[in-house]
Amino acid sequence: MGSLPLDALQPLDPDTFAADSSAVVDFLAGYYRDVDKYPVRAADLEPGRLRRLLPEAAPEFGEPAERILADVRRDVLPGLTHWQSPSFFAYFPMNASAAGFAGEMLSVGLNVVPFMWVASPAAVELEAVVVDWMARLVGLPDRFLFSGSGGGGGGGGGGVLQGSTCEAVVCTLAAARDRALGRIGHEGIVKLVVYASDQTHATFQKGARLVGISPANFRVVPTAAASGYALTGAAVRAAVEGDVARGLVPLYLCATVGTTGIGAVDPVRELGEVARRHGMWLHVDAAYAGSAAICPEYQGYLDGAELADSVSMNPHKWFLTNMDCCCLWVASPAALTAALSTDPEYLKNAGGGKPQAAAGAGAIDYKDWQISLSRRFRAMKLWFVLRRYGAAGMRAHIRRHVAMAEWFERAVSADERFEVVAKRRFSLVCFRLRGGGDAMNRELLAAVNASGRVFMTHFVVEGKFVIRLAVGGAMTEMRHVGDAWELVQRTAEQLLQRRGTRKNEDENPLPW
Amino acid sequence: MGSLPLDALQPLDPDTFAADSSAVVDFLAGYYRDVDKYPVRAADLEPGRLRRLLPEAAPEFGEPAERILADVRRDVLPGLTHWQSPSFFAYFPMNASAAGFAGEMLSVGLNVVPFMWVASPAAVELEAVVVDWMARLVGLPDRFLFSGSGGGGGGGGGGVLQGSTCEAVVCTLAAARDRALGRIGHEGIVKLVVYASDQTHATFQKGARLVGISPANFRVVPTAAASGYALTGAAVRAAVEGDVARGLVPLYLCATVGTTGIGAVDPVRELGEVARRHGMWLHVDAAYAGSAAICPEYQGYLDGAELADSVSMNPHKWFLTNMDCCCLWVASPAALTAALSTDPEYLKNAGGGKPQAAAGAGAIDYKDWQISLSRRFRAMKLWFVLRRYGAAGMRAHIRRHVAMAEWFERAVSADERFEVVAKRRFSLVCFRLRGGGDAMNRELLAAVNASGRVFMTHFVVEGKFVIRLAVGGAMTEMRHVGDAWELVQRTAEQLLQRRGTRKNEDENPLPW
Repeated sequence: MGSLPLDALQPLDPDTFAADSSAVVDFLAGYYRDVDKYPVRAADLEPGRLRRLLPEAAPEFGEPAERILADVRRDVLPGLTHWQSPSFFAYFPMNASAAGFAGEMLSVGLNVVPFMWVASPAAVELEAVVVDWMARLVGLPDRFLFSGSGGGGGGGGGGVLQGSTCEAVVCTLAAARDRALGRIGHEGIVKLVVYASDQTHATFQKGARLVGISPANFRVVPTAAASGYALTGAAVRAAVEGDVARGLVPLYLCATVGTTGIGAVDPVRELGEVARRHGMWLHVDAAYAGSAAICPEYQGYLDGAELADSVSMNPHKWFLTNMDCCCLWVASPAALTAALSTDPEYLKNAGGGKPQAAAGAGAIDYKDWQISLSRRFRAMKLWFVLRRYGAAGMRAHIRRHVAMAEWFERAVSADERFEVVAKRRFSLVCFRLRGGGDAMNRELLAAVNASGRVFMTHFVVEGKFVIRLAVGGAMTEMRHVGDAWELVQRTAEQLLQRRGTRKNEDENPLPW
Repeated sequence: MGSLPLDALQPLDPDTFAADSSAVVDFLAGYYRDVDKYPVRAADLEPGRLRRLLPEAAPEFGEPAERILADVRRDVLPGLTHWQSPSFFAYFPMNASAAGFAGEMLSVGLNVVPFMWVASPAAVELEAVVVDWMARLVGLPDRFLFSGSGGGGGGGGGGVLQGSTCEAVVCTLAAARDRALGRIGHEGIVKLVVYASDQTHATFQKGARLVGISPANFRVVPTAAASGYALTGAAVRAAVEGDVARGLVPLYLCATVGTTGIGAVDPVRELGEVARRHGMWLHVDAAYAGSAAICPEYQGYLDGAELADSVSMNPHKWFLTNMDCCCLWVASPAALTAALSTDPEYLKNAGGGKPQAAAGAGAIDYKDWQISLSRRFRAMKLWFVLRRYGAAGMRAHIRRHVAMAEWFERAVSADERFEVVAKRRFSLVCFRLRGGGDAMNRELLAAVNASGRVFMTHFVVEGKFVIRLAVGGAMTEMRHVGDAWELVQRTAEQLLQRRGTRKNEDENPLPW
């Protein structure tokens, strides 16, 4: 039968697979055991360090897994910022968990591609089930579900698991755009306007530009302290009316539940009413805070979601689901697939695939629900998390972190040198030193991060520099939040003392 | 320090992590051992089967990993199409390997987010190193590398790891579009034209539409047998000149090395010259066949790549790198980041992050090289594959599959009942039964797939239905290709016999 090269690899030999994989599991278990010993933010901030350690070209011959793992430990780990450190309070949490890992391993190991129903029916159906489960958990209206809460009848909508909010936003923008262009013709693309607030995630601006909306037609509506930095219906209405008067076409409005900067919450119902009146697509971005909505006490923030066209949240942030996983729900799958479907010959099922009857009965071709044709089996991961921890376990996970953030907020409030900036609603606390202005707050954050004992990031609200402490790491416990507060206090003391000394001496000022 | 809910999870407890993960490793090793016992294409093609097996809502309480794995085995596996089966010859291969799995596990377990340099310097730098390694392996010109082959000086270009060709295409289309709109103003978006062939992947049409190109301005240039179904420079030139005469603006041209349907190869240099003359962005899509270019005997297909603006290939297809991983190289990173960068306050490094000097020295913010802000640590996976198997091992992997496809091609050619349709260049063989027309070929494919012993898909070229055998699975050996050919022959015999009988009887025709 023809000769083969003698040195053929056996890349999925079960014994090699098990041995290599076990070595990685041991490596990672050790990493979790020791992760709090690493500086949280990469210790070595000299650009090009790793590049200099590595050869110019790929090796010619293969090496054992153990040697590669040793290099990961020696060369890579010191250059990582440790997102799973219990003292990582930067950006938003990016949860890992044993269940998220197990589910992802299954997905990666099976390595199926559920881009069309026939290409792996059970993977597609598991996804449809899991997004319905999630929709019910966060209390979304039936219109976003495949199967209505009655059990039998369909909800009319449905969900998909994508990699990120950014992807979800691009898809919904394209759907909204094509719905509008269907009415006004493709030349109208230059008239379409997208609305967001000055607190909305930058991905909406990027996404709008990506789908061909003129950057001049992206409205950043200002917010203020009076509304808790929420986007008000009145402000949107004013902007929309101005645009309409100028002959432009309102397209898309974004409401955020839990903004990235300070965790503000836009009033979904109020914005939904404005969107409806002007024929705009309303997207609700609950990337971070959507996880909290599995607890009844937070579901009020989604009130009015029945007025939205789409809703998204990221289990990979605060829902113990390793990167990447974003739930996108739409009320009208047809609007989404009209913008995103393709039907090339090589994907038709003429060779004996999907039965005729399949289309209506949940035989979804998810390639038409997203940007990419190929896709991961993400449902396995989210399903494993939900099965392993259960809804009750996940609620406890959320409430535990909120309790820690509450404690931190109380501690900051009780120290007269500090102030809490913007109301805390979830597990994000924004604070600053009252005296010293932005310069000292910047310096405080820099010093705290330089210690390697925590990592926090900042935001600027109404021109004021604020420090963000975002609780939510899978290994974060009360003591880590307590340590973070002690470190902030002690560092602030030193800065204030130095500033006192300097003021007294009034000479040779340091460059801060 | 405040009381916490008593039932707090410990989602990254190292012992639970190791126990659950080991159970999954055992599960997968067993799966690989037995995968050839499953019907290749999902056995159970009844839509809604899995949905009916699962409850309407997520469980309230968590369960042990073993119970979940038992459900995966019982409920999910029978509904999967087994992409890792050695007899999966459909679409293109989607490689898994022990090394790809190990690398992905490290990435998933560390769960860092290399979206900005400071967010994990070593992860960003490993990515820059690995895309340079890959560029060298496939013989790309220096202009697509971060570091030129001289060693010291930069190549001027650079690469990024994305999830799919589709994402890469959207990014390059947006870069090309914004470069053009910079010259002609945003209103010019309605004049931009994208060129591809009737063999080009559907993702280009989808991508063009996504970035706001009018569907009426996507040109599908016909190909013919005479050029081996390659897009010719003359055909593109004719289309472009027609459009220019009508006041339209040529924007983007796609050259494919190894088309999805039949593995055709467009002449990169010839198309590059047309693109240059008309100021178009040239993208070279080598999604599948790019892996073959690590063997010198295939690098000629990329001749002329120095005329391209971007090149992409997917290690997740035929390079033993589990889903998902797409290399995108660009000659001008600035053109890409101009279209995709964002700079919101919460990502500025004021809190003590990236040193001033960093920007130039390889401190890349990859969020500005792709659609999404967040992103996976894909470099770890590709690096692990390259280290574990080496360039020599990977070349053997490729050549082994090409040898199997050659054998199959010879076998088909030697059987006068069959014909090979379109020249085989890599590991894809397109063939059909000479007699019987499309109906019998469709039936042949349906019967072969229904046996559960192989899975192949089809394509239509110049109106003719052809069967595709794409070799490349990680576990595929000569005997599997041999068995596939025997099955095809035996099934064809039965069909031809039945047809003979029917012809003789000339009554009661069956519905095919």
